[in-house]
Amino acid sequence: MEIRAPYLLFLGDAPDDLGAKTARGIVEWSPASCIGQLRLPGCGADMGLPDLTPVEAAQQGARTLILGVVNAGGNLPDNWIPVIEGALAAKLDVASGLHTRLASIPALSAAAARHGVRLFDVRHTDRRFETGKGERRPGKRILTVGTDCSVGKKYTALALHRELARRGARADFRATGQTGILISGGGVALDAVPADFISGAAEWLTPANDPDHWDVVEGQGSLLHPSFAGVSLGLLHGVQPDAIVLCHEPTRTAMRGIRRPLPSIEQTIQVNLAAGRVTNPDIRCIGVALDTSRLSAAAAREMLKRTETEIGLPCVDTLATGVARLVDALLGE
Amino acid sequence: MEIRAPYLLFLGDAPDDLGAKTARGIVEWSPASCIGQLRLPGCGADMGLPDLTPVEAAQQGARTLILGVVNAGGNLPDNWIPVIEGALAAKLDVASGLHTRLASIPALSAAAARHGVRLFDVRHTDRRFETGKGERRPGKRILTVGTDCSVGKKYTALALHRELARRGARADFRATGQTGILISGGGVALDAVPADFISGAAEWLTPANDPDHWDVVEGQGSLLHPSFAGVSLGLLHGVQPDAIVLCHEPTRTAMRGIRRPLPSIEQTIQVNLAAGRVTNPDIRCIGVALDTSRLSAAAAREMLKRTETEIGLPCVDTLATGVARLVDALLGE
Repeated sequence: MEIRAPYLLFLGDAPDDLGAKTARGIVEWSPASCIGQLRLPGCGADMGLPDLTPVEAAQQGARTLILGVVNAGGNLPDNWIPVIEGALAAKLDVASGLHTRLASIPALSAAAARHGVRLFDVRHTDRRFETGKGERRPGKRILTVGTDCSVGKKYTALALHRELARRGARADFRATGQTGILISGGGVALDAVPADFISGAAEWLTPANDPDHWDVVEGQGSLLHPSFAGVSLGLLHGVQPDAIVLCHEPTRTAMRGIRRPLPSIEQTIQVNLAAGRVTNPDIRCIGVALDTSRLSAAAAREMLKRTETEIGLPCVDTLATGVARLVDALLGE
Repeated sequence: MEIRAPYLLFLGDAPDDLGAKTARGIVEWSPASCIGQLRLPGCGADMGLPDLTPVEAAQQGARTLILGVVNAGGNLPDNWIPVIEGALAAKLDVASGLHTRLASIPALSAAAARHGVRLFDVRHTDRRFETGKGERRPGKRILTVGTDCSVGKKYTALALHRELARRGARADFRATGQTGILISGGGVALDAVPADFISGAAEWLTPANDPDHWDVVEGQGSLLHPSFAGVSLGLLHGVQPDAIVLCHEPTRTAMRGIRRPLPSIEQTIQVNLAAGRVTNPDIRCIGVALDTSRLSAAAAREMLKRTETEIGLPCVDTLATGVARLVDALLGE
């Protein structure tokens, strides 16, 4: 799955930027890929991009319309269908992270075939993977892991990748979820892979590479989250990371979606290192990334300092402080 | 799904009986259903059944060809397709536990329709699961776990169930793989469930029950096998077993399908107990089941005795000694 830039971002009728957070993520992490936005009447979101029709966007070089809107249930509203048909008629590919497959809508699959363009349903994968083999392979890999879901694993991986690239290191971001795929244009939505192939898909996503090349891999779930730990473990085994970064949201009182307290940072690191040694005996944790956005500036500083002392590893806030100190630790600088 | 006996068992070109473990399981636990075997040139497996062509088997009353061969990844080799077409032409249904759906192969779906017979893809379920919740629920559960794949987890669970039933305990066998489903007539082929729903499917399979009821759950893979550990962990979290039995094959020198030595019994028990405590803090290991079939009788006795001393738990051979001592330990008798 390789989604071609530049993108026209479809914001639908999202009431605000939060409703278009997929688009916001793409603009934030891949601004050069975005040449315009397409909004329906009543849309309150604004990515600060020119408003373009599909035909205008195509004339300016756009290759893909990205559905950048999150809507409850992940279904495709009927009033989007003519808009998508218009994009296909303008020879744009269309990429979606919705549960509803674009290809399952006859009008859209017919239009795509007619115009010779493609539909990407990034939440689904038809690719056939091998089972994981667990063999060591060249190249270096870093994986973000977490005490819970939604604690900054994707953003921290994106930030690590950007910082590595800024320093001239050879690195690729490897997306494992639909938003990460739409941001980066490729990857595997690991949660939809048949269970037998989790680690095999992770191996496919992070193949053998040059010894100085870094794959920076978006983590999923948590080894200690009883809903998703199987995904987290298969990903950890398949990636065989040389390094992990532990992500945590310090104000969270219960694990996401279930009634259960969060595990500690220290416990989560130890569990990941123990399981990671199965495929990479040299795995190490290079630091901690906290999401302190719900704390005051003073409380955030205190939390970062205290955590760093307790854990004995560099502790950053991905958005507030950046991840430079993690990359220092990673590269031994 | 109602798969009709008697069966013709297809052994493909399995190099040995281990490669045809689906067929072997059916012969062992449902012998009256099996009237013949069908082998390709080079097949080294032998179920001790008459070699029959599909036409001969149909003449003797067979209703279904069962694909009794396990191959890594669960794909359907091209050279099986004409054999399956031949069975369909002989008016046999065909049942498969492969990942590849028979019905997805146009030649086979067309032949099934033409001959008025059915294709069963038992590894697939169209059921939609919830994500796992990790909440404690009433009823008791025992799960077989292993140092590797193919070390007797299914057989040991079947034997535990049979022994519990013999003693009048209320118990259900819960199949998690295609052979177990073919033997017991129900269950979930966990390896084909989308990764996000592994633990949720395991929770669905072993629901709340009376306090004295035992679910005896067939284990999958190994927490320390890098191909399948994600499945093993999701299953462990979802089942939230009160008890585990560790299964091991003492002559195995490498993990199945990969180049990697087996972990120790002790390490595997500890890893399972640590991970199992996430959803059941009271989890305990009640014993060890060795497959000593590749040892002499004297060596087997010595191995069982030595393992029991080393581990400090009852140690049995499921087929050679039976599992009565494990059930004694389970029931405190």
